[in-house]
Amino acid sequence: MNSSHSILRVGLAGLGTVGGGVWHRLATQSDLIKQRIGAEIRVVQVADKRMDRARELGVPEKIVADDWRKLTANSDLDVIIELIGGTKQAFELIKEALQSGKHVVTANKALLAERGAELFATAQKHQRHLLFEASVAGGIPIIRALREGLVANRIISIHGIINGTCNYILTRMNEAGLEFKEALAEAKREGYAEADESLDVDGHDTAHKAAVLAALAYGFWIPPEKLHTEGIRTVEKQDILYARKLGYGLKLLAIIKTDKESAVEVRVHPTLVPESHVLASVSGVFNAVLVRGDVVGDTLYYGRGAGGDPTASAVISDLAQIAAHFPQEQKARNVGHESLQSRLKSMDEIVSRYYLRLLVLDRPGVLAEVARVLATRQIGISSVIQPEAHAGETTPLVLMLHDAPESQLQAAVREISQISAVKAPPVHLRVEDFD
Amino acid sequence: MNSSHSILRVGLAGLGTVGGGVWHRLATQSDLIKQRIGAEIRVVQVADKRMDRARELGVPEKIVADDWRKLTANSDLDVIIELIGGTKQAFELIKEALQSGKHVVTANKALLAERGAELFATAQKHQRHLLFEASVAGGIPIIRALREGLVANRIISIHGIINGTCNYILTRMNEAGLEFKEALAEAKREGYAEADESLDVDGHDTAHKAAVLAALAYGFWIPPEKLHTEGIRTVEKQDILYARKLGYGLKLLAIIKTDKESAVEVRVHPTLVPESHVLASVSGVFNAVLVRGDVVGDTLYYGRGAGGDPTASAVISDLAQIAAHFPQEQKARNVGHESLQSRLKSMDEIVSRYYLRLLVLDRPGVLAEVARVLATRQIGISSVIQPEAHAGETTPLVLMLHDAPESQLQAAVREISQISAVKAPPVHLRVEDFD
Repeated sequence: MNSSHSILRVGLAGLGTVGGGVWHRLATQSDLIKQRIGAEIRVVQVADKRMDRARELGVPEKIVADDWRKLTANSDLDVIIELIGGTKQAFELIKEALQSGKHVVTANKALLAERGAELFATAQKHQRHLLFEASVAGGIPIIRALREGLVANRIISIHGIINGTCNYILTRMNEAGLEFKEALAEAKREGYAEADESLDVDGHDTAHKAAVLAALAYGFWIPPEKLHTEGIRTVEKQDILYARKLGYGLKLLAIIKTDKESAVEVRVHPTLVPESHVLASVSGVFNAVLVRGDVVGDTLYYGRGAGGDPTASAVISDLAQIAAHFPQEQKARNVGHESLQSRLKSMDEIVSRYYLRLLVLDRPGVLAEVARVLATRQIGISSVIQPEAHAGETTPLVLMLHDAPESQLQAAVREISQISAVKAPPVHLRVEDFD
Repeated sequence: MNSSHSILRVGLAGLGTVGGGVWHRLATQSDLIKQRIGAEIRVVQVADKRMDRARELGVPEKIVADDWRKLTANSDLDVIIELIGGTKQAFELIKEALQSGKHVVTANKALLAERGAELFATAQKHQRHLLFEASVAGGIPIIRALREGLVANRIISIHGIINGTCNYILTRMNEAGLEFKEALAEAKREGYAEADESLDVDGHDTAHKAAVLAALAYGFWIPPEKLHTEGIRTVEKQDILYARKLGYGLKLLAIIKTDKESAVEVRVHPTLVPESHVLASVSGVFNAVLVRGDVVGDTLYYGRGAGGDPTASAVISDLAQIAAHFPQEQKARNVGHESLQSRLKSMDEIVSRYYLRLLVLDRPGVLAEVARVLATRQIGISSVIQPEAHAGETTPLVLMLHDAPESQLQAAVREISQISAVKAPPVHLRVEDFD
C-alpha cells in the first residue's frame, strides 16, 4: 500500500476485558490492518485508574491517564473508545468527546438504550461518528449488516438470541436436564455468568440490545422501561422437555417486528422456536440474529456474542471504518434521524401462538372446562399432551394454542386459574413460527 | 435528512432477473435509501437489446440503449452496474467503465474468478471502486463482513454452502430419499436448477465464488482451473444415509484454509459435516458461509444465495456504499494488493478425515485386508458400519477414517480397489469437523 499513510490517533478509556483485548489486538494486528485500510490506528492515550492493570497489559506508563477527562481534553485525539461501562460517567465521556470534535466508538448498550437519542443528536450536531458495532452480539458484524448490507431493505422483523449467558443456561437445561438454578451455578463456575446474574438472566441486557437493534431498524429509541421484558429465571426444566416433545426448542428471544401500519413491537421473553429452524440450532454461549428484509428475505448472523476478543474485533472494525476515509471527513451517519412514522405497540396488541401448561387434578371434564374458557376467547387448541396419571392425582396438561391476542390469552389464563381442578398457576410461553 | 442532496447517476447494463430486480427495487425503495444515506441513487441509462423486456419492467424507452458501449461512453454516469454476465463482453464493459472514470458494481463471479486480478489492478490504477457484494451468496452481506466487519482478523478458514441448487438437491436426496437424478429433475421443475445444470451441479459456480472469497481473505487470485473442484453428480443416496447413521450431513462445501506457514488450500467437494454443527442445519436453497477469524472466532452468515430480489439487495448495498460518500471521493479499496506471503497448497498436501464405502464380498478376512492396507499407509479407522448379509453375497462396508494426507488416502484407495473381494470402485468423501 502507500508508503505514506494517515494515522488515526485513538484514546482508549477503560482497560477491562474488552479494553485489554482492543489494546492487545491493535498491537498484534496493526500491520495487517494498515495493509488492509491504508491507514494506521494508533492508541496514543489510555485512561484507567488501575495502573497495575495497564502494566499487566504492557501499556507504556507515560500514555496512561488516571481520569478519562484527560482524554476528552486531549486535542490530539481523533477518536475515543468508551469502554468504562455504566451510564453516568460514560454518558459524560461520550458527550464531551463528541463536543470536542472527536469520533466515538462504544460497546455500551445499556447507555445507548437509555440515552441513545440524546447522544446521537449530539453526534449529528457536531458531525462526528458514534459507532457501536460492539454493543450487540459481540464480534458478529450485525450493526454493519443492518445499516449497510441491508440498506435497500425495509426491515420486517428481527429475532435475536443475543445473550450468551441465557443461551448457555437454556442449552444446559435442555441437554443435561438441569433446573435453572443448577444451570446458573454451572454457568458461574464456567465463567459464563457474572456473580450478580440479574442483568443477564432477567432479560435486561437483551432488552438493551433489542432497543439498539430497533433504533437501527426503525429510527427511534424506545425507553427500556417501555419494553416488555421477561427473563429465564422462571423457566422450568419440564417446559423445555414438553416443548421438545412438541418439536420446539426454548430460547430467550428479542423480537422486533413491524406491520403494514408501521406499528412496531419490541419484546424480550422465553420463546418456543421450531426445532427445524436454524435459530433452534444456536447453542451454548453463541448468539444469532435473524433479520427479515422485504427485498432480501431472511438472513442470519451467528457467532460469539461476548468476550474480550470477539468484542475487540467489533471495536476495531469501527475504528477501521473511521480510519479508512481519514483524514478526509465523511458524512457522519447516525441513528434516529429517519422520519419513519413508527409507534410502539403495547403488549396487549401482540398476537402470538402460545404454549400453556397447567397442573390439573386428573378427573373427567377438566380438559373440557379449559377448552370452553379458551373457546369463549376465540382461542383454538392445536395439540394437547397429557401424561397418564391415576384418577385423583395431579398431572400436567400441556396445550399448544393457535394465534391469539396477548390480552385475550391473559384473560383466559386468569379464568383458567380459577377452575377448581387447576392446582397451580398456569405457565404460558409464546411461540414463534417464522412463517 | 438534508433537503439538498447529492445524486449518484447509475447506468444499468443487463435487464435479466437481477437487473430487473435492481430496477424495480431502486424505484420502490428510493425514498427509504435517500433517507438512510443522504444521497439519491438514480438510474439514468439502461442497456439491453430486448426492448420488450425494458417495456415489461416499465423502463422509459428514452433511457434504454441497445448496446452497453453507450453506457461506458456516457460521461454523465458515475457508476455502471454490470449484469450482462459471461466473461468476454462483461470484461470489456468493466474495463472500459473503470478506464473512463466510472465506479463499477458487478455480480459476475465467473468473470472475477477468471480475470479478477487484471480488473482490480485497473480499478486501483484509476482509483475507482469495483464492488461485488452480489457475486457470492446473493443478498447475504458476506463480502462486507469479510472486508470490513472482520478487518481486525486474520482469516483462518472459510467454509461455504454457496450454491443453492446443489444444496436443494442434497437436501431433497436426504429428506425424500431421492437419487441425484430424481432430485435434479425436481429442482428443474421447481425452477431451482437451469436447463443446463452443469455450472451448478459440477461445482464450477461454487469454485468461482470460492476464488472470490479466497482473494478477499488472502489477497491473491487463484485461477479456477487450479482449484480442486468436485460436484455432486456422483453423490449416491446410500452415502447420504450412511453418513446420517454416522451422525453427519452431506453438503457441497467450498473450503478455504490457511496454516501457520500461510499456505492456502482452496477446494470444492461434497463433504460430511457433523449434524450438530450449524452448517448442517442449512437446508434447501439457502446459503451459509462460516468464517473463522483469529480474533472473533467463528461467525456465520446465512440467507438466500440467489434470485432477483436477494441479489438486487446486494447490488443496491454496493451502490449505497459509493453514494454515501459521494461526490466527495474516497480511497478505492480493492482486492489483491495485500502483500501477504501466500501460496496455494496442492491437493496432495491436504489433510482430512475420510468416509470410505466399499462394496465387498461377505467372506471372512475382508475387513482385515482393508484394515491392513490402511495401516501400512498410517491411516486409522474410527468406526465401521457393515450391514448383515448372507455369506457369499456382496454388501457395503463403510469406514470412517482418521486424519490422513490426501496422497496417502488416494494410494490406499487404489490398493484397496485391487483386493479381489472388493467388487466396485471405492467411494470416498471428505469430512470436516470444525474443531
